[in-house]
Amino acid sequence: MDPIMQSLFDRKSVRVFTGEPVTAEEKALLLEAAHQAPTGGNQQSYAIIDITDQAIKDELAELCDHQPFIATADVVLIFCGDSQRNLDTYREAGMEVRLPGLSSALGSAVGAAIVAQNVVVAAEALGLGSCYIGDIMENCERVRELLDIPEYVIPAAMLVIGRPTQQQKDRPKPERFEGKYLVHENRYRRLSGEELRDMYRKKAGAKGFDAWVKALCERKYESDFAKEMARSVKVWLKPFMDGE
Amino acid sequence: MDPIMQSLFDRKSVRVFTGEPVTAEEKALLLEAAHQAPTGGNQQSYAIIDITDQAIKDELAELCDHQPFIATADVVLIFCGDSQRNLDTYREAGMEVRLPGLSSALGSAVGAAIVAQNVVVAAEALGLGSCYIGDIMENCERVRELLDIPEYVIPAAMLVIGRPTQQQKDRPKPERFEGKYLVHENRYRRLSGEELRDMYRKKAGAKGFDAWVKALCERKYESDFAKEMARSVKVWLKPFMDGE
Repeated sequence: MDPIMQSLFDRKSVRVFTGEPVTAEEKALLLEAAHQAPTGGNQQSYAIIDITDQAIKDELAELCDHQPFIATADVVLIFCGDSQRNLDTYREAGMEVRLPGLSSALGSAVGAAIVAQNVVVAAEALGLGSCYIGDIMENCERVRELLDIPEYVIPAAMLVIGRPTQQQKDRPKPERFEGKYLVHENRYRRLSGEELRDMYRKKAGAKGFDAWVKALCERKYESDFAKEMARSVKVWLKPFMDGE
Repeated sequence: MDPIMQSLFDRKSVRVFTGEPVTAEEKALLLEAAHQAPTGGNQQSYAIIDITDQAIKDELAELCDHQPFIATADVVLIFCGDSQRNLDTYREAGMEVRLPGLSSALGSAVGAAIVAQNVVVAAEALGLGSCYIGDIMENCERVRELLDIPEYVIPAAMLVIGRPTQQQKDRPKPERFEGKYLVHENRYRRLSGEELRDMYRKKAGAKGFDAWVKALCERKYESDFAKEMARSVKVWLKPFMDGE
């Protein structure tokens, strides 16, 4: 298989790092890979906050659903959709413009995620391990204050990056659903109850669909962190709701 | 340079295709690369709508800001954040759950973008050209109807893919801003007017910052398509606003 394709297939999240630092050259390559990603109108409407201060890493580990391993990562990058810089640019050119709306929030967050995934691919190519932390969307008020995030900037994803331990390299990649449940031809097709049960059959195993899904739902959806994220994202999006 | 890194650096958008079809094997690899991407909780909360019907491609070309080249692409994939399938799954397991909120919309859209970028990287590896179409977020009502998109699914990005013409291969990659304007250490730092002017100096060229930015703003932000997107995204997000 083509080495690039193979790399996409091999890549899995890494949450335990050896502690050996990521070199300045490697970090520069990761960031350059970020900037090479495509962006809407080539406007690069993103900002990357590179966390080098251990005290900030420590607090982010707490703010992002109490995950201590975050603070052990050598490289911690927060990918933000940035509609503030464009707004400031238009105003600097003397224009009076509308305020950014929800399309700016959503579009720039999607753009920032595209940029982040280029960094994930680059990290894998360099033999580095990475893990997304979606929890960066929680605790809006404190994250905004801690990182001086202005009104029209929204954190879309955080990546922690470091050298994987041997145990992490050996860990099997979590299984994916069969593609037929994820790809729809021409029109979205809602899955029937029977299809949903088939889809989860392998994952649920001996536990069975009902019990396995109930546990998943309690862990991922009806959990404290998920409810905090729901609250917090509303606050992140508030300024954009007043836009046009 | 490492071939994977080189590929990230080389990749540029392709909008003109030779017409030679993408093979079934190539398409299967593109979709498998999608499924190999990381997703929150490995839940794969995305749906890919694979447009094979020429009449739908033709209409999407119109709906996405009148870009006829969309209809000439052999492969057209729409990456949606999918909170509907999870909701249906929880209910099938007999649970009574909260309705998806804005965090589900934003989080799943970010997830779908990460999946889409894996496809972009895979396409480049296969010698195929790709282009993102952000305009898929416009014209919510008609797109929803055309593609049977349910309440808790939101299109995050569309990709068109085909074989690049020689002219497209030879086209220079559009220049990026210097990284120092995009990467912030530890805290977001708003750029001063002088820094913004420096940032755009090369792009603006002889035209000068004020005139160049004014034209950019009129083309990309105060334009009809951008205003339609702002309207449409509000409608896409409406069901999630009523969630918790």
